[in-house]
Amino acid sequence: MIEFDSEQTRQRIGTRIKDLRDEQGLSLRRLAFMVGMDHSYLSIIEKGQANATITSYVKIAIGLGVDLKDLFDI
Amino acid sequence: MIEFDSEQTRQRIGTRIKDLRDEQGLSLRRLAFMVGMDHSYLSIIEKGQANATITSYVKIAIGLGVDLKDLFDI
Repeated sequence: MIEFDSEQTRQRIGTRIKDLRDEQGLSLRRLAFMVGMDHSYLSIIEKGQANATITSYVKIAIGLGVDLKDLFDI
Repeated sequence: MIEFDSEQTRQRIGTRIKDLRDEQGLSLRRLAFMVGMDHSYLSIIEKGQANATITSYVKIAIGLGVDLKDLFDI
């Protein structure tokens, strides 16, 4: 069976989200509010500590105004 | 707050996964086995009926031998 480090992948995705957010000068609380997400949950997504669902990532992509695939360009 | 149709997005992602799988002549059961996933769960992911976690999509991308972002090129 295929082995892989999912936490490391989630961390790289989280860093990507944070970079995209910082580029736009959006605070974590602002983005979280925009997408109807608790800011502490968005924080742990950015740290790669949450095995979030695809719907959460779709919301984040919409809030950042980027294509979904851009979040995963890691 | 941002409204969007997450089920439609999940369906488009599921169709993308199925297309990538079909291109490689991989059966659903074969891909599911390769990534250690129940084939019925992979089936509902392909139909867009599961709000799967990012780890599930990472496994599928690895099983298909594609970059994670390719699953979301929808």
